[in-house]
Amino acid sequence: MGKLGRVYVIGIGPGDPELMTVKAVKILTEVPVLCFPKGKEEGSSVAMSIVAGTISLDAKEIIEIHFPMKKIPVKDEASCDVSSKWEETVEIILGHVLKGKDIAFPTLGDPVFYSTFFYIHDKLLSLLPSLQVTIVPGVSSMSASSASAGIPLCLGSERMAILPATYEEKLKETLLSFDTVILMKVNKVFDKILGLLEELGLVDSAIVVELASTDKQRIIKDLRSIKDENLHYFTTMIIKK
Amino acid sequence: MGKLGRVYVIGIGPGDPELMTVKAVKILTEVPVLCFPKGKEEGSSVAMSIVAGTISLDAKEIIEIHFPMKKIPVKDEASCDVSSKWEETVEIILGHVLKGKDIAFPTLGDPVFYSTFFYIHDKLLSLLPSLQVTIVPGVSSMSASSASAGIPLCLGSERMAILPATYEEKLKETLLSFDTVILMKVNKVFDKILGLLEELGLVDSAIVVELASTDKQRIIKDLRSIKDENLHYFTTMIIKK
Repeated sequence: MGKLGRVYVIGIGPGDPELMTVKAVKILTEVPVLCFPKGKEEGSSVAMSIVAGTISLDAKEIIEIHFPMKKIPVKDEASCDVSSKWEETVEIILGHVLKGKDIAFPTLGDPVFYSTFFYIHDKLLSLLPSLQVTIVPGVSSMSASSASAGIPLCLGSERMAILPATYEEKLKETLLSFDTVILMKVNKVFDKILGLLEELGLVDSAIVVELASTDKQRIIKDLRSIKDENLHYFTTMIIKK
Repeated sequence: MGKLGRVYVIGIGPGDPELMTVKAVKILTEVPVLCFPKGKEEGSSVAMSIVAGTISLDAKEIIEIHFPMKKIPVKDEASCDVSSKWEETVEIILGHVLKGKDIAFPTLGDPVFYSTFFYIHDKLLSLLPSLQVTIVPGVSSMSASSASAGIPLCLGSERMAILPATYEEKLKETLLSFDTVILMKVNKVFDKILGLLEELGLVDSAIVVELASTDKQRIIKDLRSIKDENLHYFTTMIIKK
């Protein structure tokens, strides 16, 4: 067996191509194969357009992999109907790696936060334990939302919680006990969350940022004004007391 | 009054100069005045050496401001002995801004996480409400620690908490109820935390990363092996169940 290719999982930031790191640009420029996940909701176009805004894709081999962006823990993988898609993805990656080709996964935001890549990570390593996977951290949408809104997430001894807005159990308790709470994927349950914030007297401590750092960014300080709106998938809510 | 200068608060990432964003490099290259906080524990040298690793500081006006990195909330500012230092900082910044000079604050990691800059932010705006402050988000040490260790912080519907390790109240409860817990500034209380993790049966779910992304990075998977060691100030603990 010849020299194996490497796998790079690269955070490309929240949307503004200039929020890519120098390292991300460098590796994406060098690596010959780029692999973009293609989900129903997010589409591959977002990640690809961020990358294409900075480096030329002309000489690249581009692989688009369609698999639903289901938010399920790895441990439930076996019982999930997308596992065959993951296997397909794994085969494609290993095919390149075994030929000695490096392959990069540009990942929106920061790959350590809710990235779908990790659904295939363990499988890759179980099939090829000597595989080298390098994760390049990036700027998260949460950080970009906070920066755009001019609201620091944590100061001093403050404590923060991050959770999907769709998580209902203990949500109230978390909102009450933490200094800062970040709700991800708030678009699906916005009206419900608004109701809960009203109940807890926290509406005026909350802010919503849609499409942070992009040309279409919206910072919404009056949450009541967007009731009944269809918010974008890339929407983050910051509750800061 | 002529055109005011702008203030940029720029995340320069956790240590590896290549983890600066393209935007950070661009702004730091253009802005004529750079302001480095100089704290007892962190020193200005870290931030300055990261910046100097990428852009030339030759033509820059460099301001080093000494103020203790006390972790106190903004609201307690008045009662704190470092407030005079902040006022000094504010005067220097405003002096440049009023002359129309842009000024940048390179900030380790991500400025929205536990950055000392925000202790002067409100004061700046209260004195000069028309001041334009732009925050450029960066890669946090937390993300870099996670990426280096190859451990994603959150997947699917997981919930995460971030808190200073020195926070004792409810620490046990937080460790028990969240999928992922990040303890910042763990160096001061490591042995105590280790004891708590032993008690909760979580030692093997924890990892410590010292000086993430730097040449001196250490990833410690056996926490018991570093008992009684003096850990660096830039040490993060990830507890991931």
